[in-house]
Amino acid sequence: MKELDLSIIGKKSEEIIFKYSWKDVVLYALGIGTKIDELQFLYEGYSNGLKVIPSFACIAAARGLQLRRLGKIEFSHFVHGEQSIKLYKPFTPSGEIIIQGEISNIYDKGKAAVIHALVSGYNSNKEHIFDTEAVFFYIGAGGFGGDPGPKVEPINPPKGVNPDFSISYDTDETQAALYRLNGDFNPLHIDPEFAGRSGRFRGPILHGLCTYGIATRAIIYGACDGKVERLKEFKARFTREVYPGERLTIEGWKDNGRYIIQVRKDETVVLSNAYAIVE
Amino acid sequence: MKELDLSIIGKKSEEIIFKYSWKDVVLYALGIGTKIDELQFLYEGYSNGLKVIPSFACIAAARGLQLRRLGKIEFSHFVHGEQSIKLYKPFTPSGEIIIQGEISNIYDKGKAAVIHALVSGYNSNKEHIFDTEAVFFYIGAGGFGGDPGPKVEPINPPKGVNPDFSISYDTDETQAALYRLNGDFNPLHIDPEFAGRSGRFRGPILHGLCTYGIATRAIIYGACDGKVERLKEFKARFTREVYPGERLTIEGWKDNGRYIIQVRKDETVVLSNAYAIVE
Repeated sequence: MKELDLSIIGKKSEEIIFKYSWKDVVLYALGIGTKIDELQFLYEGYSNGLKVIPSFACIAAARGLQLRRLGKIEFSHFVHGEQSIKLYKPFTPSGEIIIQGEISNIYDKGKAAVIHALVSGYNSNKEHIFDTEAVFFYIGAGGFGGDPGPKVEPINPPKGVNPDFSISYDTDETQAALYRLNGDFNPLHIDPEFAGRSGRFRGPILHGLCTYGIATRAIIYGACDGKVERLKEFKARFTREVYPGERLTIEGWKDNGRYIIQVRKDETVVLSNAYAIVE
Repeated sequence: MKELDLSIIGKKSEEIIFKYSWKDVVLYALGIGTKIDELQFLYEGYSNGLKVIPSFACIAAARGLQLRRLGKIEFSHFVHGEQSIKLYKPFTPSGEIIIQGEISNIYDKGKAAVIHALVSGYNSNKEHIFDTEAVFFYIGAGGFGGDPGPKVEPINPPKGVNPDFSISYDTDETQAALYRLNGDFNPLHIDPEFAGRSGRFRGPILHGLCTYGIATRAIIYGACDGKVERLKEFKARFTREVYPGERLTIEGWKDNGRYIIQVRKDETVVLSNAYAIVE
């Protein structure tokens, strides 16, 4: 059985400074497939100022995850299951973010341990910029007699109802090769032999957070009229792998002050149990 | 008339350290359109080691150009006319290059001044890695009573002879937006308004050095069996602009120990007077 250091639950990590330039912002935008007519995300001299796609929070947050605090992890059994972002203030085109993380809970699902990792970001004026929560399944690390965690209410699109928006994007075959330059260098996303060894994939897969970023971009257009500052929250579950080059369709249904979101490739749902809150 | 400080001719610039990581190498490769099946240029864990496309020398050399030594330049009248690279030793996947530049000549073509800028790169063991020469036309800066320079022998493909290799690549509409992250931030390559203001272009154009890098990549496959270390020299003249999204065809004809090279978009030649020496 894989062991986790449960004593770190709730203990905040040290603060880290995440410093970024407009080039990091543009690299992120290109990494999630931003097109040339979306200049607000690509050009540092854009007339109204370069805008940062809010899921950039995940790039900043990755520096604060510090999963090594959990002990020695076998990353081949570590699966990113869910991601959420809450946004309080838009990112500036460049700057410094103070990052602090925390493992908030580790639930015991028998086969797997389910790890909830929170990261918060503040600017140098101590203004709250974002919170992120990532949920990881650590296969083979359950069965330690812990709390199985709360039951999660499923979120599904209404049956037979047309979505309020539907946007499709082709990903590029080099999408993961480019996205990984943002800092997630797991060979699963570029090395055919490594990816094949798992037996689960026919080749390198796209980063879940790349799909998540693509979905965020679609929500900005579909639900926020292209304005990044209108997105307040986006949460999704990673249901199936995406291969670079596949076409994604992002759809949203208005539902009591939020949008229910679904992302699929053809008929296969890849992001599920998803919602966005916009203002 | 635009004035240039002619006194700097032949004076070497100070040495600069160009430090790069595998991420810079991969970003460059993606910037010149490298595809996912060319893993030797994209994956830092590639079985035989990440390979650096030799035109990366132009990225290193740009740090050593120091064109400000020429005086105040109006870059809107400054045109990159020719580029050559000579390669003595392959780049390591990451490292430090000692860069030193020199304006070797400024010729007087009447209307324009023609500026020849040499840059050399050495590794930390003082081993010679590359020389580059860039030729710039500075429109309106001629007529200072200088030497018009030597007559250049035209280099043309043999008429009616099929090339020894012909490789076509589609560029992406975001090609220039990505390429510029390598360090050439001229808005001509991303800002539609800026590009239109010149009256010469219908929109942002691809960096000449991006086309040059794409051609280098093609030469590696067409003439060097995919082996970067076999390319020893590549020189070309920038004849016409390329727009991101256009398809380029790179062709080479064997000619007395070298290849005559030509790059065109449809029937329009964009790199001319070009040759490559391979080993």
